[in-house]
Amino acid sequence: MFTPTFVTERFAACTDRRAWLAAMLDFEAALARAQADVGVLDPEVAERIARECVVDGFDADSIAERAAASATPVIPLVGDLTERVPEDVSGWVHRGATSQDVVDTAAMLVARAALDLLLEELHGVADECARLTREHRDTVMTGRSLLQQALPTTFGRKTASWLGGVVDATESVSRLRRERLAVQFGGPVGTLATLGTDGVPVAAALAERLGLAEPVLPWHTERTRTGELASALGTVAGTLGKIALDVKLGAQTELGELSEGRSGGSSAMPHKRNPVRAVRVTAVARRVPGLVATLLSAMPQEHERGAGNWQAEWEPFTELLRLTGSAASLTREMLVDLRVSTTAMRTNLDVTKGALLAERVSAVLAPELGARRAKELVTGLVSRIGDDEGGLRAELLDDPTVRSVLSEEAVLEVTDPEGYLGSSGEFVDRALEAYARWKETSAGDSGL
Amino acid sequence: MFTPTFVTERFAACTDRRAWLAAMLDFEAALARAQADVGVLDPEVAERIARECVVDGFDADSIAERAAASATPVIPLVGDLTERVPEDVSGWVHRGATSQDVVDTAAMLVARAALDLLLEELHGVADECARLTREHRDTVMTGRSLLQQALPTTFGRKTASWLGGVVDATESVSRLRRERLAVQFGGPVGTLATLGTDGVPVAAALAERLGLAEPVLPWHTERTRTGELASALGTVAGTLGKIALDVKLGAQTELGELSEGRSGGSSAMPHKRNPVRAVRVTAVARRVPGLVATLLSAMPQEHERGAGNWQAEWEPFTELLRLTGSAASLTREMLVDLRVSTTAMRTNLDVTKGALLAERVSAVLAPELGARRAKELVTGLVSRIGDDEGGLRAELLDDPTVRSVLSEEAVLEVTDPEGYLGSSGEFVDRALEAYARWKETSAGDSGL
Amino acid sequence: MFTPTFVTERFAACTDRRAWLAAMLDFEAALARAQADVGVLDPEVAERIARECVVDGFDADSIAERAAASATPVIPLVGDLTERVPEDVSGWVHRGATSQDVVDTAAMLVARAALDLLLEELHGVADECARLTREHRDTVMTGRSLLQQALPTTFGRKTASWLGGVVDATESVSRLRRERLAVQFGGPVGTLATLGTDGVPVAAALAERLGLAEPVLPWHTERTRTGELASALGTVAGTLGKIALDVKLGAQTELGELSEGRSGGSSAMPHKRNPVRAVRVTAVARRVPGLVATLLSAMPQEHERGAGNWQAEWEPFTELLRLTGSAASLTREMLVDLRVSTTAMRTNLDVTKGALLAERVSAVLAPELGARRAKELVTGLVSRIGDDEGGLRAELLDDPTVRSVLSEEAVLEVTDPEGYLGSSGEFVDRALEAYARWKETSAGDSGL
Amino acid sequence: MFTPTFVTERFAACTDRRAWLAAMLDFEAALARAQADVGVLDPEVAERIARECVVDGFDADSIAERAAASATPVIPLVGDLTERVPEDVSGWVHRGATSQDVVDTAAMLVARAALDLLLEELHGVADECARLTREHRDTVMTGRSLLQQALPTTFGRKTASWLGGVVDATESVSRLRRERLAVQFGGPVGTLATLGTDGVPVAAALAERLGLAEPVLPWHTERTRTGELASALGTVAGTLGKIALDVKLGAQTELGELSEGRSGGSSAMPHKRNPVRAVRVTAVARRVPGLVATLLSAMPQEHERGAGNWQAEWEPFTELLRLTGSAASLTREMLVDLRVSTTAMRTNLDVTKGALLAERVSAVLAPELGARRAKELVTGLVSRIGDDEGGLRAELLDDPTVRSVLSEEAVLEVTDPEGYLGSSGEFVDRALEAYARWKETSAGDSGL
Repeated sequence: MFTPTFVTERFAACTDRRAWLAAMLDFEAALARAQADVGVLDPEVAERIARECVVDGFDADSIAERAAASATPVIPLVGDLTERVPEDVSGWVHRGATSQDVVDTAAMLVARAALDLLLEELHGVADECARLTREHRDTVMTGRSLLQQALPTTFGRKTASWLGGVVDATESVSRLRRERLAVQFGGPVGTLATLGTDGVPVAAALAERLGLAEPVLPWHTERTRTGELASALGTVAGTLGKIALDVKLGAQTELGELSEGRSGGSSAMPHKRNPVRAVRVTAVARRVPGLVATLLSAMPQEHERGAGNWQAEWEPFTELLRLTGSAASLTREMLVDLRVSTTAMRTNLDVTKGALLAERVSAVLAPELGARRAKELVTGLVSRIGDDEGGLRAELLDDPTVRSVLSEEAVLEVTDPEGYLGSSGEFVDRALEAYARWKETSAGDSGL
Repeated sequence: MFTPTFVTERFAACTDRRAWLAAMLDFEAALARAQADVGVLDPEVAERIARECVVDGFDADSIAERAAASATPVIPLVGDLTERVPEDVSGWVHRGATSQDVVDTAAMLVARAALDLLLEELHGVADECARLTREHRDTVMTGRSLLQQALPTTFGRKTASWLGGVVDATESVSRLRRERLAVQFGGPVGTLATLGTDGVPVAAALAERLGLAEPVLPWHTERTRTGELASALGTVAGTLGKIALDVKLGAQTELGELSEGRSGGSSAMPHKRNPVRAVRVTAVARRVPGLVATLLSAMPQEHERGAGNWQAEWEPFTELLRLTGSAASLTREMLVDLRVSTTAMRTNLDVTKGALLAERVSAVLAPELGARRAKELVTGLVSRIGDDEGGLRAELLDDPTVRSVLSEEAVLEVTDPEGYLGSSGEFVDRALEAYARWKETSAGDSGL
Repeated sequence: MFTPTFVTERFAACTDRRAWLAAMLDFEAALARAQADVGVLDPEVAERIARECVVDGFDADSIAERAAASATPVIPLVGDLTERVPEDVSGWVHRGATSQDVVDTAAMLVARAALDLLLEELHGVADECARLTREHRDTVMTGRSLLQQALPTTFGRKTASWLGGVVDATESVSRLRRERLAVQFGGPVGTLATLGTDGVPVAAALAERLGLAEPVLPWHTERTRTGELASALGTVAGTLGKIALDVKLGAQTELGELSEGRSGGSSAMPHKRNPVRAVRVTAVARRVPGLVATLLSAMPQEHERGAGNWQAEWEPFTELLRLTGSAASLTREMLVDLRVSTTAMRTNLDVTKGALLAERVSAVLAPELGARRAKELVTGLVSRIGDDEGGLRAELLDDPTVRSVLSEEAVLEVTDPEGYLGSSGEFVDRALEAYARWKETSAGDSGL
Repeated sequence: MFTPTFVTERFAACTDRRAWLAAMLDFEAALARAQADVGVLDPEVAERIARECVVDGFDADSIAERAAASATPVIPLVGDLTERVPEDVSGWVHRGATSQDVVDTAAMLVARAALDLLLEELHGVADECARLTREHRDTVMTGRSLLQQALPTTFGRKTASWLGGVVDATESVSRLRRERLAVQFGGPVGTLATLGTDGVPVAAALAERLGLAEPVLPWHTERTRTGELASALGTVAGTLGKIALDVKLGAQTELGELSEGRSGGSSAMPHKRNPVRAVRVTAVARRVPGLVATLLSAMPQEHERGAGNWQAEWEPFTELLRLTGSAASLTREMLVDLRVSTTAMRTNLDVTKGALLAERVSAVLAPELGARRAKELVTGLVSRIGDDEGGLRAELLDDPTVRSVLSEEAVLEVTDPEGYLGSSGEFVDRALEAYARWKETSAGDSGL
């Protein structure tokens, strides 16, 4: 369909058919060279094979079509490669490998490219969250629970939560990218029988060549890697979906607290400020949990190669990389461009005419009046506010019982939202410190 | 990725970007003409607009790219269309409509095309199931529960179940195709305000023009249609997945009862008969439930247009059409080409050396020996079979207690699998009769 | 966990362990009597069995515990039943049946009870939607797209969409309840071999006895029924989730358009009006798509009895009945009790100071000024509104170009939201008519 | 329903209503004491509160019922607790906390108990896998891809993959259990406003008291913890599902390689060896991905408290703990009790009459005959095997071309499955070494 509506160009490019094809050819080239590395193949022969493993020499669409007959693109790919190399070395093409070795290893290479970009975008998202958190450490606004105004907070406190979530979700991805992207090389049943006793060294050299981890065992039907990767991406999507949700809600016409700078215009309705990126992030994030479930439910694969569940992984795996990457890009753009109306935040604090602080007022009166009586008194005053412009503050100033225990100054203070922020500033500072520590330790992430 | 491995060409074609674009243009053309139909637009003006609504006049890729900015492909599409029509009629382009009207109606048009093909394929699958059921009404084989041999059945009885499932799943799709593919036309908030009092007649004419149902109301955020359609496709996938599962299991080397005629060869292992289509159907079917869940979870959409959940529908909706359509094509091919080894079925009946019929033997002995004693006796004989080639039959013939109540002829009869098929023939006949009735009543399905 | 937070008492009761046990015993009793009905069992023997099939004679917890060993509760249940009946008739207990026959048929009986209650609740939800639609046919409010104010609509128009969705979703459930709840009776492999040639008549009598449909075939591994039922419940949940979403959003403190009469109080924050039922419906609806996916993904079941996927159905199936039933109960309560603030709706129409009608103003000016110039003019005026209390109306009245083509009266008219409702009234009427027709035809639904 | 069929007693007990209630009371007790710890509450008062926080003092069912009205069990719980404590200290009950603090922290405590048991079970599963791997390092059997016999492998090589998966999945759970189970304490909007500047120290003391991590920030709407935990459990279920799948397939009557010692008997069919635990594990594992998707899709929660998505977490979260825990218990039992028929494994190697080694034979002939000619020759010989008892070996011995390059001894060697195991022994050793290292480093896991 109209994919670019949701998938950004850079994540489309690193996961498309050409990218997969290139990754599969990288496997074949590295396999030839790895055999040379361990001395079971003449290095020159290896090079004669490897030099043909360039994506422009192959017709990806034709391979895709022919893939249907065997349910794997590897058979036509290896066929084409074999035809390209000189006949005398053709016996060494794909030696010892099976289709799954190629596809699984290619999946890891595609994932690495996509995760590097994803990590870059997520770092960008975190940076923007940190910036907003710093800038709005003391920007008072309404905190809301169950979509009801509840108590004052700060916008910095809100974005500190966004920041914390992004850092945690990024860390999961980062750890998987470092530790769990491993070469797959086992031959038809995971014994590397064709290679006699050379299998393990060749596998090690192959991993080295491709810059992937060497796993303890081939993982053809041990799918924790795909399960973990899908899951981590699911957490990323949920975390970004939360940010987009808050932006959409804050951007409601009636709240007006947030808007996207380059909002999506409506040709017909010039006043609209559609939170276009938040909508796109939401749309993308919504699709992720179903894909994660698909990959988890595909983990049980028969014997030494799955008869359907393995093949079911390919597109959802690719799609997860594209969607979460795009969600991160879009979130970053959204935050770079986010307009924060401190005026609207201030105005919305007054919507309840002071009732927002009723809890605090009760608490202040409790020591003098007793908790129950204080609460009843305040509840009564809140119910009297009605259209009275003065709000709870006026009611308190007018109430003789209140005034018997609170001075005018005390009433003004206790009804000031800025005075009831508890540890929000401290939480903001903690979040920024944790972020700073994280930036230091993750500086080398994916070559950033 | 290498999509053709799973999505067949015909289902790719009817759901691709070009197909969506054509459907959106069909909406715009029909909208202009519908306004002429009810007399609010000069028919000639309508034609001047409609004649520009041809897919080759538009650059689908460019529209896709520009769709990102507004989170909808309709804004660039209408922009391009407006530029193509003479300036004096441009004010009538897209009149009264909103983006969602175009996308939702296009979705229905794309779905109609895909469902028509799907229904054709499903009828084909049903026909093949019926053929196998007729041909193998009396082909005795092993029935298995929990993957254990349980009692004799017939292959026709097994395929009768396949047939019943396919007919039921097809009926659900067929009913939705007839009744629930409706035009969406409501303007920005579902009031058709721009059209004054002409909205309802224009909507009716539009539905007529497009051959879609006229809904009681615009359904912009009333998403039962997408939910129902996704669900019906989910049931189709589950039904086809069951057939593929039985084929895969029957095709195991050790069972050898079924094979795909043009099995996927293995370059390295000439003896393998990979059940390639069953694998592909499995792979496709595995991906469907997650997509259904995505569409169901996207049903709650805010107010008069969803801020993310609507947009989340587009690709999973398209994907469901492609995947279930392809699963049906592949299942049909698989069944057309299915090789049934009645020899292997016969051989496998003897794997337990007659223990398969222990239940029956007990039942036959029970009236004479009492149920408990009969069962104990038979259980004992079964445990004695071991490597004895004669199996349970020989044990029975040798056992004096058994022989005191059963003649040799009776033992032979009671240990004959063909004699213990119960109502399987009758069930086969009922399934074929139900199929025949269904074919009659569904003859007009999607123009078949 | 604290299930009653979400599952209402009536739906808990009709789906709990006792209800399942009762349904399984109903199967056993009906099976004995069905054999008597067709003359293969002495009616008196049948009664001696049937009279023991009363739930109070069994220890459900003990059966549950013993179920683990065989992965089915039927083996201990039949064991206990066999011990309860006189020894001379014990051979006739459960005759011809297999565990799956009991569980599947019990599932249909439990579903019938739950669906009848669900249908009753859904009718109640529809009735409330219809009442609101009638009462608020002309209550003007803001229509919102992408959470932005877009154009005026009416509250009745909004609830008409709710109504339409509920009617459609209910119809799907109603049809399944009428047509698809079928007895399962096939014996170990679906041949009813134990019953010789009596299988089909006994199955027919059993269906008759239990008031369930007689299927063409046993459906042990043909799971379209569970797939369809799950799917229909998924659509119900999505439809109810939409209503709850609109209520939650309308109940936001800043909108104040809707509230639940008996809102959930907050002990600490007396001003809060937590939309408690909307929250509970949302929580319940969120859990449904995953359960539907589970049931769809469990449809492919091996050979003649599933080795895991069948057993996986039981709890999600039960849970779906409980959750959707409870969602319907809670939605009904929520709507009965819904407080609609027409004042707030009116006030919110003015939040944009008239910009909400910019589209209309442009359209009115276009014939005189040309579409482009009209739009530019209006966009300019909208951008000038700022804090000006008079809003767009004042800008229009002050603008000489506007006034050259529109009188003061015309400006007043074109800026009146009530005058820009298009077909909303007509749509409301259509929805109420469709509802009235539906109530007539569905009068007999589930004995209502 | 009949839950014990799937949920084992120990996992039911640590996650049931009483366990949740106890955890919530632990929170309240620790909160009072934490305030004493930091000097804001008289320690004696704290003790007077804490001493009432014992589960037997509360009626869990009554709390559950009353939870409905406010959509949270905390309001009735705190109400009951407040009534139990002396009136003069009641103001200190639950001080500073909000419902979500109690439920989220209780969730972490419940999770901790369940994860400790889960880790114990998973270690047990790993130990059994390691035992089988050691014992069957050299047990030759058939490797299968796409359910077709492919090449020889060993049973130890197969279980080494099981082992590797279990270790990896366990590690993920173990890390989360150590690092991510954190106290939640933020008050209504995450500012701890009621506690003035004491919030952070109280939170730290609370974490210390409960033995949970102190998070950087309250995580009320930052749900990476639930997302990650659900995901890790999803990977566990997928990993155990794979083992169960292999057991079920190996236990097929026709393969007979594996069986469960205490197999589920069939009353009617004495020969059946139902793989009951594998079936139960499969049933449990099938339900997990949908629950993971539910928790991931619930991650985006509004503002400072979710209006439905938070509440949607409770039961799926609990269910995931129960199901994965039970799956681990059942898998452990299954493996402890697994019977391995090395005879059947050997027999099944001959099913293809030597064709299993065709790849190898071709490879051996290739240097002499050329790859293409060798392959054609072998393919031809394989197709001639038919019913010939001697199989490929006899064909090779009879073929003059083969014999021109291979001696009889060479033919015997090349057709011996034991000679074509490649690196399988080395892989087994690597897996066991990795397991041994893991056992050392994880010795302290959950107090094991």
